[in-house]
Amino acid sequence: MTKKAVQDYYPDDIAVCYGCGKLNEHGHRIKSYWEGEEAVCRFQPKPYHTAFPGYVYGGLIASLIDCHGTGTAACAKALEQGKTLGSGNLQRFVTASLHVDYLAPTPIGKTLELRGRVKESKGRKMIISVSLTVEGKETARGELVTLQMPEDFLTKNK
Amino acid sequence: MTKKAVQDYYPDDIAVCYGCGKLNEHGHRIKSYWEGEEAVCRFQPKPYHTAFPGYVYGGLIASLIDCHGTGTAACAKALEQGKTLGSGNLQRFVTASLHVDYLAPTPIGKTLELRGRVKESKGRKMIISVSLTVEGKETARGELVTLQMPEDFLTKNK
Repeated sequence: MTKKAVQDYYPDDIAVCYGCGKLNEHGHRIKSYWEGEEAVCRFQPKPYHTAFPGYVYGGLIASLIDCHGTGTAACAKALEQGKTLGSGNLQRFVTASLHVDYLAPTPIGKTLELRGRVKESKGRKMIISVSLTVEGKETARGELVTLQMPEDFLTKNK
Repeated sequence: MTKKAVQDYYPDDIAVCYGCGKLNEHGHRIKSYWEGEEAVCRFQPKPYHTAFPGYVYGGLIASLIDCHGTGTAACAKALEQGKTLGSGNLQRFVTASLHVDYLAPTPIGKTLELRGRVKESKGRKMIISVSLTVEGKETARGELVTLQMPEDFLTKNK
């Protein structure tokens, strides 16, 4: 496990994502770590992140899969290019599409574990699969099509 | 437009969803209203619901599409059965799968408008499509497979 998380290598000027930006003090500030062939994120929902009494809100699950998925892509791309984490800022990835299958209700009060893997990597596009488990039981599965953020993304969309 | 929102007709004992529960004081408390053939939800993101500076967090977009989609299903099912809103609590729907296509960055600081429609209704299953626009421009599109919540959902999953 790396000491710093994937998100710690995002450039500061765009590290404001509510899900994973280290500089968003209101947000979830998820942390993803590279382990072997995949990225792992452990997250403890707040007691009020409920869907129904006792279960985690599906929107939070989608959000975690999204942010952990783009984090997985950013890290995997750097490693694919022979870089090491810590050799500079990571290239950010944005989500083109997100699909989540809710397999079973996710109990609240326990740590969620998300594991992201590269399913396909082609040019600026990466398809990432993410599995969410609670105490070893898979309760949701996601897939994202992510694109490496164009260098002019922020200026072009202003 | 109905005076009360779809979510105001959810039974109190399960109205704790972070996205749409009227009794979750930390949550988004979205409100969906039936208009003609569709349900409409207008939502103002907080300034900190950012993805990148100036743009709305994709996880929030997925969350809104999810909750507005299940609200659309609950309302549409009641109307399909010849009921009127206000004749009793609505049957809740849960999400089996959620798909979101992010078509363009969604600017922050403006009101998001989500419109949900029934794509398919068969027994306890409803497929709902949701379009998200900002000032008339569609920036995201979603589709949910939703299932009417079994009566023993909460007790069975305890």
